Amino acid sequence: MGSLKVSKAQDFSEWYNQVVQKAGLADYAPISGCMIIRPYGFAIWEKIQRWFDDKIKATGVVNAYFPIFIPERFLKKESEHFEGFMPEVAWVEKKEANEEHYALRPTSETIMYDSYANWIRSWRDLPLRINQWCNIVRWEVKATRLFLRTREFLWQEGHTAHASEEESESEVALRAAQYKELVETQMAIPVIMGKKSRSETFAGADYTIALEALMPDGRGLQMATSHKLGQHFAKVFGIKFTDKEGKEKLAWQTSWGLSTRTIGAIVMVHGDEKGLVLPPRIAPIQAVIVPIYDNQTKSAVMKECEKLKGKLEGKLRVHLDDRDVYSPGWKFNEWEMKGVPIRIEIGPRDIENKQAVLVQRDMKEKKPVKLSGIEAEVEKTLEHVQENLYRKAKEFMSANTKDAKSFNELGKLIADKKMVKANWCGYGECEEVVKEKTAATIRCIESETKEGKCAVCGKPAKSIVYFAKAY
Amino acid sequence: MGSLKVSKAQDFSEWYNQVVQKAGLADYAPISGCMIIRPYGFAIWEKIQRWFDDKIKATGVVNAYFPIFIPERFLKKESEHFEGFMPEVAWVEKKEANEEHYALRPTSETIMYDSYANWIRSWRDLPLRINQWCNIVRWEVKATRLFLRTREFLWQEGHTAHASEEESESEVALRAAQYKELVETQMAIPVIMGKKSRSETFAGADYTIALEALMPDGRGLQMATSHKLGQHFAKVFGIKFTDKEGKEKLAWQTSWGLSTRTIGAIVMVHGDEKGLVLPPRIAPIQAVIVPIYDNQTKSAVMKECEKLKGKLEGKLRVHLDDRDVYSPGWKFNEWEMKGVPIRIEIGPRDIENKQAVLVQRDMKEKKPVKLSGIEAEVEKTLEHVQENLYRKAKEFMSANTKDAKSFNELGKLIADKKMVKANWCGYGECEEVVKEKTAATIRCIESETKEGKCAVCGKPAKSIVYFAKAY
Repeated sequence: MGSLKVSKAQDFSEWYNQVVQKAGLADYAPISGCMIIRPYGFAIWEKIQRWFDDKIKATGVVNAYFPIFIPERFLKKESEHFEGFMPEVAWVEKKEANEEHYALRPTSETIMYDSYANWIRSWRDLPLRINQWCNIVRWEVKATRLFLRTREFLWQEGHTAHASEEESESEVALRAAQYKELVETQMAIPVIMGKKSRSETFAGADYTIALEALMPDGRGLQMATSHKLGQHFAKVFGIKFTDKEGKEKLAWQTSWGLSTRTIGAIVMVHGDEKGLVLPPRIAPIQAVIVPIYDNQTKSAVMKECEKLKGKLEGKLRVHLDDRDVYSPGWKFNEWEMKGVPIRIEIGPRDIENKQAVLVQRDMKEKKPVKLSGIEAEVEKTLEHVQENLYRKAKEFMSANTKDAKSFNELGKLIADKKMVKANWCGYGECEEVVKEKTAATIRCIESETKEGKCAVCGKPAKSIVYFAKAY
Repeated sequence: MGSLKVSKAQDFSEWYNQVVQKAGLADYAPISGCMIIRPYGFAIWEKIQRWFDDKIKATGVVNAYFPIFIPERFLKKESEHFEGFMPEVAWVEKKEANEEHYALRPTSETIMYDSYANWIRSWRDLPLRINQWCNIVRWEVKATRLFLRTREFLWQEGHTAHASEEESESEVALRAAQYKELVETQMAIPVIMGKKSRSETFAGADYTIALEALMPDGRGLQMATSHKLGQHFAKVFGIKFTDKEGKEKLAWQTSWGLSTRTIGAIVMVHGDEKGLVLPPRIAPIQAVIVPIYDNQTKSAVMKECEKLKGKLEGKLRVHLDDRDVYSPGWKFNEWEMKGVPIRIEIGPRDIENKQAVLVQRDMKEKKPVKLSGIEAEVEKTLEHVQENLYRKAKEFMSANTKDAKSFNELGKLIADKKMVKANWCGYGECEEVVKEKTAATIRCIESETKEGKCAVCGKPAKSIVYFAKAY
């Protein structure tokens, strides 16, 4: 595979491309704008899936599967929604002239809610909470970036219907909180969370709660969103129920999603000059054992390595690299590139000393550890790595989030690759000016305020927001 | 939901449609030829996925994800393969005239093997074993049947590359054996397994091993297939490796798949006049507790039910139906329709007697069971249900598989809804005659033979085969 040809600091974008490919996470597909998620990258997605799937199932969600084909007439029913997605919709070629025109799902609100209208009759059918894990097609025209911008990607989309507005708002908040826990405790990436401004709100939603993470190049990356859909879709699809008093009412809805682009964020936030660095909780391999031997010592070393592997199995995801054709040094490089949190080296002298050498991927130093009781030490070290990665990312975010009082200051900070916290009057015009002049957008609203002045126009502020360029 | 309006014996096809929909497994989508897999149906698929995914991972397979878009030029590379799939390929509308023409994957050999050619360089890269769980599009023109024939369905497809022919053949056999175990021990459906005749072999394969199950209407349903691809694809995609002696060689390949249509088989084989009957191992709910109470006894009964639920949780998948708005009788019907293997009734008199009433879905009788130690009894009963369903299906298959010595006999047996075991000369002409006259095809080859005569033409037989109409 070879080492990285660029540094993270000097050419971040090229560094990212190389890490994703050299670590074996993904490849460019032979189809314009598409990616292949390779086994190692997919194994990370499986860890994310398992965690989140368990979480949502424990809180009333069930999985299902709806067609990838969305009739054009469905997409058109909610005009704002349709206009939002229209530019990037891919269509199926009609086989016969009188056939319907089908889009490949850019999202599934319309196809799912057509069924919801059939399934929901009474308050007894509510709440309805359905999720699906599936592929999504958005025919992007901008340059492809593995995981971050591709014409097909994988995600989960949850879609719920409720009897009351309050309940739907609790649902939006619950899923946002679960995303925050997933991103912060599993991916070790700190986020800011808040409502989107009107212009960044999901097409067809009342409001959108976004989780935004700060990348090393100062750009914000949207990790997940949770939308309050209100009754817009319920109106156009006729999702009505009879309440306990026998009155017919419209359902209140939410939708929420997280995609494979979060894997891109993990690469960017934690990776270093040697390649990928994976948080232990989502790492396909948490510890790799690398034997160091010559012809004479091979059998004794391998025996000890097998024994160690046996000890660790069941407690953590361990791999013994027993390939004969590569040198230990070559293996060190490979597992560093692949971001395995802990490397355990065992050589003849270690065996004599009844120890192994532990190397943490996120640190430089090597640490000898006694073989007896090494399980506890490895487990503890994994926790350390997890915490350390989160702490470092959190420090980076704090150090690179700055307040701006004026438009001038805001522009300078954005140019300096900072995320900017500033007062905002709430008007789209000011948002537009910032976008035009700095390319930054409002990533999310931190809180409402009645004090201070808009950093752009100087009029009274309505909220405190975060500005950044976005992925 | 209401009960079934037809009997399984009288109108099997309509019975099937009603069970699938009334049990909440799937719905017709508002898109011609497509289905919606509802949560209850999807939960069965999840059980199948988990079992098989664990199995293949334990035997060297990793998951990945390749694009749904297949360039036309890839499909055309292997001409037999292309011709096999061409009639049912759906294409993406070009956005620009000079864009490539993309098919929606009818299967992923070509897109995956293009990557394999890049990834495989040396014997060290072999074997390569990758699987993906994904949606598949085949624009069928025949009438839609939920799970059995739809334009989009879900499946897994495994694709492997090996250094030797022997190893590839072991792989084909291993996956076929794992499918057999999945279908027989989890779905409780007995299968016959053997090679396909040439005309039924996968487009582009050397040979195909098929698992065939017998449905109550006498038709065979293909549950899964495992293909030896030989070096056909390796040749056209250039999948070459340097062997240990430094010589360049072509890889040997296999592919194997199982889809959501197996859920249709589960419905058909085990279902009865009251609806679905699910084998416990793949049942989303294995036991449902139905409380029986009036206003006075409600709190005592519910307390006991909660206690019982607590006892069973963790040991099996248990659900307490605590809905206040439905009567016990209504609930009995619903859970019978949904095929839950065991119902546990608890009423005031049961509590007095320190017992509950156990009702097996596949039997008529009710059985009182002491509450102390009921866990073991429920677990044992689940095993009984699993075994009983398999035994009944096996008996049905034995009773409905008949030998034919002549073409006349063969035709009569097929008309009488039997699967027919007969000698075959090995020539496509005889196969074609049977198909024309009886609509039956060779489901698979049981074994080679040097004795006897072909049931169709009377020439010396080469193999013993199974004939049946197919789904």
